Amino acid sequence: MNSESIPNFEGAVCPVPLRHHDTIVIGHGSGGRMTQELIQEIFQPHLASPQLLAGNDFAEVKPGSASLSRLAISTDSHIVYPLTFPGGDIGRLSVCGTVNDVAMSGAIPVSLTAGFILEEGLSTSLLESIVVSMSNAAQEAGVQIIAGDTKVVEKGKADQLFINTTGFGWIPEGVNINGSRAKPGDVVLISGTLGDHGIAVLAARGELGFETEIRSDVAPLNHLIQAVIQAAPNIHVLRDPTRGGLATTLNEIACQSQVCITLEESRVPVKPAVGAACEMLGFDPLYVANEGKVIVIAPPDEAESALAALQSHPHGRDAAIIGRIGESPKSRVLLNTRIGGTRILDVLAGEMLPRIC
Amino acid sequence: MNSESIPNFEGAVCPVPLRHHDTIVIGHGSGGRMTQELIQEIFQPHLASPQLLAGNDFAEVKPGSASLSRLAISTDSHIVYPLTFPGGDIGRLSVCGTVNDVAMSGAIPVSLTAGFILEEGLSTSLLESIVVSMSNAAQEAGVQIIAGDTKVVEKGKADQLFINTTGFGWIPEGVNINGSRAKPGDVVLISGTLGDHGIAVLAARGELGFETEIRSDVAPLNHLIQAVIQAAPNIHVLRDPTRGGLATTLNEIACQSQVCITLEESRVPVKPAVGAACEMLGFDPLYVANEGKVIVIAPPDEAESALAALQSHPHGRDAAIIGRIGESPKSRVLLNTRIGGTRILDVLAGEMLPRIC
Repeated sequence: MNSESIPNFEGAVCPVPLRHHDTIVIGHGSGGRMTQELIQEIFQPHLASPQLLAGNDFAEVKPGSASLSRLAISTDSHIVYPLTFPGGDIGRLSVCGTVNDVAMSGAIPVSLTAGFILEEGLSTSLLESIVVSMSNAAQEAGVQIIAGDTKVVEKGKADQLFINTTGFGWIPEGVNINGSRAKPGDVVLISGTLGDHGIAVLAARGELGFETEIRSDVAPLNHLIQAVIQAAPNIHVLRDPTRGGLATTLNEIACQSQVCITLEESRVPVKPAVGAACEMLGFDPLYVANEGKVIVIAPPDEAESALAALQSHPHGRDAAIIGRIGESPKSRVLLNTRIGGTRILDVLAGEMLPRIC
Repeated sequence: MNSESIPNFEGAVCPVPLRHHDTIVIGHGSGGRMTQELIQEIFQPHLASPQLLAGNDFAEVKPGSASLSRLAISTDSHIVYPLTFPGGDIGRLSVCGTVNDVAMSGAIPVSLTAGFILEEGLSTSLLESIVVSMSNAAQEAGVQIIAGDTKVVEKGKADQLFINTTGFGWIPEGVNINGSRAKPGDVVLISGTLGDHGIAVLAARGELGFETEIRSDVAPLNHLIQAVIQAAPNIHVLRDPTRGGLATTLNEIACQSQVCITLEESRVPVKPAVGAACEMLGFDPLYVANEGKVIVIAPPDEAESALAALQSHPHGRDAAIIGRIGESPKSRVLLNTRIGGTRILDVLAGEMLPRIC
């Protein structure tokens, strides 16, 4: 735990100089630097707790007795536009996103709550198909939805449907996985190709200007993660590269662990269609959101067994070793580029792809 | 647990005949009959779990081992308009609402998550004052906010600010309080005056047409509730009469417990200013939302000690005994009126006061 780190509102990373805004702008939802500024300026001064300060995407609650299991908790509001996209919809996303955040603690996710904000005029058949999708995703993950809430606002006061899910899981005895445990010498793995979710959502918005087969990777990763923990029980860090992509997530970890992460661009798996779409749009796939991928940081003697466990699971077929942890420069991510150079891989300032999750 | 009851999405009560709507209408958020229809038609077929089917405002999660404490969980999305009103704001409301739902299980609330949906253009100073208000309410309740999430949508795609809070608490050994435990002979108590919150919010909207001193009662009730449980350890039911008011909440309990609840209109405490405003607007205070009141259903031999415990707490000064539980007609609430008649007190069909919480 680093007393200088900031709350684990998702997207929070290192302290940054604040730039004052009088009103909320879209970039405040980016998960990047402006989100950090907002958290530091508005939330952290008032809502600090040890769990928030720990800077993870989940919180832990200990029952009174020390012998009891620890509980991992995570919350996420989903505002993706449009509501459905190739490979998924807001229902599947809202279940998988929170299941994955809980699973990243090493916990076994057991249950979710669901809070719905509906806009007057939303099609009930569309809503039903989304609820079915939530149910299917929950079954796939093996979790139950145990409490819910429904609110409705007038037409024009929301955008069809927003879903908050909050998830819980029990952390098995002896498991100690979090963003502050990356150590020099550790190996960085990714469970598959990058950018599929972000580009699939853009395609659904008609922003690509051409037909594509790209589908979102949105999936519950808890079973994959349990397989990896089984194979490599001393894993240090697990985190899913969602909003802000791999680059932003690795920056969070570099800050939390006070290490340098060096990434090999040539080893980062990207589907050709996603790479082509990114090139055309001027995006870097390292910053595009994923919803079914996990970053694994393992000690060197467990890297190969972690890789094998990932590759033997349907959600990890394209897994690869993509980088290393070093000593310095601390709190930085470096990219060894395909053409042989090295550059700093920074956090985005604002929003590249709004409302992607 | 009654297999015919429906999920504990808030506002859910008995099965009702369904009327199909192709689109969401404001009444679907009422907490009344249309909310039930939505839940039965859309949510229940797909998201049933034993906890949802129990029909309470909280869910319970048991750790693997039977010796461990039980965890109570509740979720609520807050969409109140306007964001600030006499006596509170959406921040205080979002903390108190969920703390209270958790406390209604008899649990000691310990922590909350907070998910923010911000509209582009929201004033950051307004947001900060609301976050401060959350912090103050959390301190008052003695809970910590342990995880958060921030999303931003474009101007016109939300109404300034929505806040989801999800809360957790541990249920002490031996405590068994829920909506299905009301028994014939039990006594019904209310912790204070009705309708203050709803009328204060209407006043803030400028809908009263005159000046009023009415303030929302929004407050964390967990300490009050612990005092009542101490004084009357065999309490059967606790529930807060929020959306839909006392009448709707008593109907929920009558259905869950398969009993008849008879209310004495003359004993129900209502502030003169609230009564006058209701008369002018054509509202019945029995249906107006409260955010700092609790219904207590106690066995007859503990009713007086429960009343004394309520009245000795600042949030329960105006507490009163207001009714009785009977055998039949099952699942009904009857009102003995001031003028000596008796009538059925039904659930509202749609929405009387939209966006009150």
